[in-house]
Amino acid sequence: MLAMAAARLGLRTAILTPKGDTPAVDVAGETVFCESYDDADALKRFAGLCDIITYEFENIPVAAIAALSAARPMRPGARSLEMTCDRLTEKRFIEGLGIPVAPFAPVETRAELDAALATIGTPAILKTRRLGYDGKGQARILKPADAESAFAALAGAPAVLEGFIDFDCEISVVLTRDPDGRAVTYDVAENAHRGGILATSTVPASIREGTAAEARKAALVIAEALGHIGTLAVEFFVTPAGGLIVNEIAPRVHNSGHWTLDACTVSQFENHIRAVAGWPLGDTARHSNAVMENLIGAEADGWEGMASARHAALHLYGKAESRPGRKMGHLTRLFPRLKSS
Amino acid sequence: MLAMAAARLGLRTAILTPKGDTPAVDVAGETVFCESYDDADALKRFAGLCDIITYEFENIPVAAIAALSAARPMRPGARSLEMTCDRLTEKRFIEGLGIPVAPFAPVETRAELDAALATIGTPAILKTRRLGYDGKGQARILKPADAESAFAALAGAPAVLEGFIDFDCEISVVLTRDPDGRAVTYDVAENAHRGGILATSTVPASIREGTAAEARKAALVIAEALGHIGTLAVEFFVTPAGGLIVNEIAPRVHNSGHWTLDACTVSQFENHIRAVAGWPLGDTARHSNAVMENLIGAEADGWEGMASARHAALHLYGKAESRPGRKMGHLTRLFPRLKSS
Repeated sequence: MLAMAAARLGLRTAILTPKGDTPAVDVAGETVFCESYDDADALKRFAGLCDIITYEFENIPVAAIAALSAARPMRPGARSLEMTCDRLTEKRFIEGLGIPVAPFAPVETRAELDAALATIGTPAILKTRRLGYDGKGQARILKPADAESAFAALAGAPAVLEGFIDFDCEISVVLTRDPDGRAVTYDVAENAHRGGILATSTVPASIREGTAAEARKAALVIAEALGHIGTLAVEFFVTPAGGLIVNEIAPRVHNSGHWTLDACTVSQFENHIRAVAGWPLGDTARHSNAVMENLIGAEADGWEGMASARHAALHLYGKAESRPGRKMGHLTRLFPRLKSS
Repeated sequence: MLAMAAARLGLRTAILTPKGDTPAVDVAGETVFCESYDDADALKRFAGLCDIITYEFENIPVAAIAALSAARPMRPGARSLEMTCDRLTEKRFIEGLGIPVAPFAPVETRAELDAALATIGTPAILKTRRLGYDGKGQARILKPADAESAFAALAGAPAVLEGFIDFDCEISVVLTRDPDGRAVTYDVAENAHRGGILATSTVPASIREGTAAEARKAALVIAEALGHIGTLAVEFFVTPAGGLIVNEIAPRVHNSGHWTLDACTVSQFENHIRAVAGWPLGDTARHSNAVMENLIGAEADGWEGMASARHAALHLYGKAESRPGRKMGHLTRLFPRLKSS
């Protein structure tokens, strides 16, 4: 989607990727395949093809980022990755900005887990500090007796215990910030998850205007503190009292912003490309209300029945293999107020 | 744009193109370069990469189309090209359907031109039968004395003399027809030209509803008679009395349908890909009013000033060289009725 957004602006894309099921290869001008992101020769060849480098995936080794950053402008900067690739670092960073997060405590040993549970209580959730996504690397602790199996499930990986939040809904703010610090935010989306995976994003969110404004402001504070260049998403819980608690930061384009492809003139992907290229940011206003629905695993098999629906925008990712829990595409339904002639 | 529409649906694209300034290379999975479209070896290699073949450009030699059609399903069929690659054939075809065209007469000799002028009168316009586009291969005959220079300008190419039409506006209908004969039409666009080149397309057109309905119907009759599969555009003049006269048929996606990229959920490009792939056609309803403005030659140099405007969708084609009269990009301004929060 980033490569396609670049092409829409007449910019050419080269990609660096491990061999495999990578649909981006088909819409990029050039591809450098690497054995891993540590492959120094591939990193060097890739940098040689680029004027500016960005990423769509944050689990890249720090050394690889450092090597690329030394060769070419790397946007967003290293700090966006450093602060977000570890849940503990991220929570401390957000807390340090005076923005609420769920109660948390670091856990490396069974004794630390017990101590953390004594403070935070149950229900709680134990999450690996690194490499978790779509509900992976997480174990719920609904009652103290679950601690043993939860600790075992994480197999010794450094973790964070998080207290459960009582929330009315989950929302996210997607924004884009340019190299001069100017930033634009998209309308707040309301997100629903199933099995730890984003199921739908709905715009507008069913929250008060003041809450939406506060969420946008908090996301901007976070982006500013990161010195982030490009698109970034911040997920929040909205409490019954209307308070906001940050769930997590994604230092990149985000699934909960996919609706911007069809409901806005300039998508989160295009604004990311504009920002990293140093171009003027585009308008984030939406022309329609929207519901984005992920097509996960076999759900995508029903695409023919969705393809012709009124104001339905279908996206299929061209992944060769459908697996349970794998995002195979998405469908955005628009609700414009304009009657078509 | 076709390759990007295919990618959005998870379909891979291979392209066949002469070497040169071809931005599609950067968004296609594979590219076969040919010396010319008659290059039998290139045609064979290209067909070997494809399940289905289509085109975005109608000036392809009949023999090349025949060779590709023998190897793979070629959509639209040969008939769409045969009936539209020659202005004389096209006008006779449309007239044969009972749909009005401007008065016309074939011209191969100076004597035929004089005879045609005697019947059609001046002002008139002399156009080559083949290979004309964006005002090229045309000479105006405002008074009989212009005949000599107009005939000389066409350098002996077989031509058609067309009578000038007194019209209120120019409109076009873009439609997509699937292999089973189902067809969908987009809202009628009103087109303004400068120097023979499309300058703007505006939706909705400033015409009566009955005229719009009649234009859509005539375009559908033409597509049906061609057995066309894919997207097709028909340009009309609207006379002061509200009558419709066909100007020309484009048997492909068309510049006057570029607004569908940003004002509709499913664009003319995506519906073309769906049709040729045998997929269900998508919704053609527009969510916003729109004005598409071509960026021609140096006009595209002003892109930075347009990039951030409210509801402005900028497209730059990545062509290496800007030349006077060359389409370098386009800007679509949307006018949605929905207030953004």
